[in-house]
Amino acid sequence: MKVDIEQRILAANDELASANRSRFADHGVFVLDLMASPGAGKTSTILATIDALRDRYAIAVIEGDIASKVDAEKVRAHGIPAVQINTGGACHLESAMIRRAVDTLDLDALDLIIIENVGNLVCPSDFDLGESAKVMILSVPEGHDKPQKYPNIFQVSEAVILNKCDTMPVFDFDEAEFTSVVRSLNGVAPIFPISATKGDGVAEWAEWLAGRIEAAKAEAAS
Amino acid sequence: MKVDIEQRILAANDELASANRSRFADHGVFVLDLMASPGAGKTSTILATIDALRDRYAIAVIEGDIASKVDAEKVRAHGIPAVQINTGGACHLESAMIRRAVDTLDLDALDLIIIENVGNLVCPSDFDLGESAKVMILSVPEGHDKPQKYPNIFQVSEAVILNKCDTMPVFDFDEAEFTSVVRSLNGVAPIFPISATKGDGVAEWAEWLAGRIEAAKAEAAS
Repeated sequence: MKVDIEQRILAANDELASANRSRFADHGVFVLDLMASPGAGKTSTILATIDALRDRYAIAVIEGDIASKVDAEKVRAHGIPAVQINTGGACHLESAMIRRAVDTLDLDALDLIIIENVGNLVCPSDFDLGESAKVMILSVPEGHDKPQKYPNIFQVSEAVILNKCDTMPVFDFDEAEFTSVVRSLNGVAPIFPISATKGDGVAEWAEWLAGRIEAAKAEAAS
Repeated sequence: MKVDIEQRILAANDELASANRSRFADHGVFVLDLMASPGAGKTSTILATIDALRDRYAIAVIEGDIASKVDAEKVRAHGIPAVQINTGGACHLESAMIRRAVDTLDLDALDLIIIENVGNLVCPSDFDLGESAKVMILSVPEGHDKPQKYPNIFQVSEAVILNKCDTMPVFDFDEAEFTSVVRSLNGVAPIFPISATKGDGVAEWAEWLAGRIEAAKAEAAS
């Protein structure tokens, strides 16, 4: 019974997600669904990514939070359009929320939309938003054992960002062990060690993303 | 429609939670539901709490995780009985899972059960497990703005533990701002700044918990 309900909710979400995906493809917009725990540095990573790519691409951000609008305000202060979604309690974004947010954006004028999902290592991994790629951030203070405990999000992510690497000496973080467990769950996703606030490693991550943006533009043009 | 389904799931959970609560009260066992983000230090805090209280109280732990049994193994290595619940994808514990786990424990021999909920700042706050008190941990690296973004968990918690306080110099954590926003959401919950791995502040937190355990025992005896 409960499984039926869950499947019905997921099926309705998937249908709208497909519509979102076609819409993004028609406009050649690459849409990134960025997922992480609370406080892993999603907003800082978004700001660093904007700085690395804003000269080449037109970017907008969709901010998902249970409550508050502080993240959208931070992005707007950075001179980038931002739409805040408040889920009012829901622990993840859904494709209907994304559709409403995208209605307020000019897709023809954009190359990249970054969606900041609600801070949560579990539920966002189950919901297709119509994004071009899901990417996750783990932050060093969370510990190297997280892939074992939250395997699904590591499996659905097309890249894994390891943030706050500058604090590795402070925490007992075993990077080799982390990489090994991530590899056992996901054989292909690149792992980008970065410090979003200090800028280390951001260029490599941004180049990977730029490659994906170019591929989406080429696909739309063909 | 979705709200109806949600209310039915919550109502079924609440009914079993009430049964759990009566059972705990009959045995004079204090049951703590410990909630936090992934990597905030739930297991380290549990181990430090065990060390502080094991001479006075008989303790068991129920470990909730999506997958893996590493936390239960850590607790058992500490000489304390531990039951691992794997939710297999679910982002929170429910009262039916707790009932099954408690069936494997000898309640007459216990004073305190600590439940480590799934790492998540959102969903666990909605589910009554029949616990005596919900308590949350926020860790300093997550940032002082989390109460604004995840208000509900701060509202339902009877105490707030601020962990990894030894790393405050490394992060841009504004403790006064944090305290002020927590106070606006929850006027009564004490805030315990601790470092679970270094031991700082653990005694104050453990004394608060001991006071609650004594109250539960007195209630059962009366």
